[in-house]
Amino acid sequence: MTATFAELWNGIAPIGRARNGGYLRYALDEPELVLRDWFRNQAARRDMPVTDDGNGNLFAWWGDQWGHDAVLTGSHFDSVPHGGGFDGPLGIVSAFLAIDEMRRQGRVPRRPIAVVAFVEEEGGRFGVPCLGSRLLSGAIEPEQAAALTDREGITFGEALGGTPAGRLPGLTGRINALVELHIEQGRALEVPVGVASAIWPHGRWRFDFTGIGDHAGTTSMTDRRDPMLTFAYTVLAANKEARLAGATATMARVEVEPNATNAIPSLVRAWLDARAAETGTLDGLVDAVIKRAHDRAGRDGTEVAVTPESYSAEVTFEKPLATRIASLLGDVPILPTGAGHDAGVLSAHVPTAMLFVRNPTGISHSPAEHAEEEDCVAGIGALARVLGDLT
Amino acid sequence: MTATFAELWNGIAPIGRARNGGYLRYALDEPELVLRDWFRNQAARRDMPVTDDGNGNLFAWWGDQWGHDAVLTGSHFDSVPHGGGFDGPLGIVSAFLAIDEMRRQGRVPRRPIAVVAFVEEEGGRFGVPCLGSRLLSGAIEPEQAAALTDREGITFGEALGGTPAGRLPGLTGRINALVELHIEQGRALEVPVGVASAIWPHGRWRFDFTGIGDHAGTTSMTDRRDPMLTFAYTVLAANKEARLAGATATMARVEVEPNATNAIPSLVRAWLDARAAETGTLDGLVDAVIKRAHDRAGRDGTEVAVTPESYSAEVTFEKPLATRIASLLGDVPILPTGAGHDAGVLSAHVPTAMLFVRNPTGISHSPAEHAEEEDCVAGIGALARVLGDLT
Repeated sequence: MTATFAELWNGIAPIGRARNGGYLRYALDEPELVLRDWFRNQAARRDMPVTDDGNGNLFAWWGDQWGHDAVLTGSHFDSVPHGGGFDGPLGIVSAFLAIDEMRRQGRVPRRPIAVVAFVEEEGGRFGVPCLGSRLLSGAIEPEQAAALTDREGITFGEALGGTPAGRLPGLTGRINALVELHIEQGRALEVPVGVASAIWPHGRWRFDFTGIGDHAGTTSMTDRRDPMLTFAYTVLAANKEARLAGATATMARVEVEPNATNAIPSLVRAWLDARAAETGTLDGLVDAVIKRAHDRAGRDGTEVAVTPESYSAEVTFEKPLATRIASLLGDVPILPTGAGHDAGVLSAHVPTAMLFVRNPTGISHSPAEHAEEEDCVAGIGALARVLGDLT
Repeated sequence: MTATFAELWNGIAPIGRARNGGYLRYALDEPELVLRDWFRNQAARRDMPVTDDGNGNLFAWWGDQWGHDAVLTGSHFDSVPHGGGFDGPLGIVSAFLAIDEMRRQGRVPRRPIAVVAFVEEEGGRFGVPCLGSRLLSGAIEPEQAAALTDREGITFGEALGGTPAGRLPGLTGRINALVELHIEQGRALEVPVGVASAIWPHGRWRFDFTGIGDHAGTTSMTDRRDPMLTFAYTVLAANKEARLAGATATMARVEVEPNATNAIPSLVRAWLDARAAETGTLDGLVDAVIKRAHDRAGRDGTEVAVTPESYSAEVTFEKPLATRIASLLGDVPILPTGAGHDAGVLSAHVPTAMLFVRNPTGISHSPAEHAEEEDCVAGIGALARVLGDLT
């Protein structure tokens, strides 16, 4: 079979799409389960048997399954709430089409190739990003992952149907390399395809601001212990500290109890997403935000508790591999990114590389995320060349 | 029958109570429907026929139904999310028990008495507080009320089972007076029972802060148009302006799209609750907050749209009635409140008065809301005396 990019892309575009054009594709929830069926179907059409690693990650094989020295390529299906359709799925669609291209050229790889769909890359459902690759590589304990809950109290273990299998035995020997193709998420790439150099260290911290719930109409301003004030100050402080540090800090998710117009909250829970080029800068930024939150809480009569929820150390992709790929593709740019990826998690264990496809506006995690079809087709061609070179 | 306060109170205490002790009693939703059944049951035990005004308000009659010159007493069942159990239900329970007390004393009222349960007083489900009394008195159009939606998109008309009937014809002649007993919600009442003098003018304004949704990790601080910043600044500005004005301003309800840790929001929607002793002060406060929100939006590259959702003009309860009641009860205090009530809405049309029962901490709209049993019993005695005097 020889499918075109448009055929495959249009086939998955309606799955989990909301009225605003954004996607609601959460790990192991209905639309993502439909996409996993689509994955199995695409694999079957290409005579590629599918295996599951017991962690929720899927692998479609061209060649020996988990023998030795496999080259993996793929990405993830899940989205952030109302995210774009490219972040993740483009890497899986491109992987299948790159294999089609290699077969059309009559290539017979010396190493097994697997198309991979990692589970819960965004952390949008269970809170920990790159959960599938963390499990596969042993960066999180299976029991700890199993106990993670979504907003409705369903655990990852329940959604998966059991405790995850955890680290793949013999991981390093079994995987020769992982190449993840992904839409670029900044504005730095001005040609169709580029190669990743590094991922900034980044993490998530949960802030629980607690005060005293009371009536908004009858409680004088001086009698209040309103945690919304402490939260608001922390949002602005995080913004200022990130600008000073040349880093990024974002507080974009908030839960308020009771979240009623006429009731001073008893709890405001919010998450800080912080990233920087250097680990020292990141740590200093987070410390400064936490200190300012505590200072303000003292003035508001509220309390703050901060819980680190995930931390991803700085990733530098293997430089010889990145250089070789960039050269192979005609000296395309090599650039860093602030976004976390499964390839970043696995880079601690196996050689990994990433191909970026141009994003004209740089917008991502939004319904407005977009890549031009001709750039996507260029990305598939580039991935086929890289896989050919690696196998 | 002669029930005690504890018997009736313990009978309704478990209905709609959450694990934190707060109540989830929303208008025309399951627990409130159970309380409405309880109302019909209590009325039946007292041989009091129940009528419905077609707006969702219930009336249990001792004497002629809607003939002429009735004295109404009661309050509401609905709560704010995780609110206390006293705000509303205390007035209904006390009304039934005050009638028991009058009958025990062998009183035969010359005027009809009705115990009333107003619908959607908090505005917790459909957004407009005192919706039942506004409909009854013609302060809101039935079609407008019917179209109000809850957070799940269900309209008030759907929940009610049709378009509300609207203003009661001949309202003024049919109602001689309304006396609403309510738990005090500030810290100003230091004896068991007091009488209301006035309700501060107050209202709700919806702020839609819009920006550009984007990736939290790959969008530089200078490229952002993050509406969370504009919201946070507005929260702090409202607090400062209210303190300067000697008024109250609260932003306690927030909805974020997409509300994901790693996605800069495209929309932050928040509600301002503002109240002041004087209309001019209130208007000046709200204008100042709106101006500061717009100023900040200009700096953040975001936009703000402000929609007034409800406005309650200053209410001064009929002074001769308040004075007479305070005197009758032994010169109890007469005090104003920042909280809105159905009695305030109806005060534009019929003589109304309110009895307040002491609240030791002043906390309300919170699971910690509380009144002592002996103060509640004192309130019932006071209400019985007032009803006896008025009928």
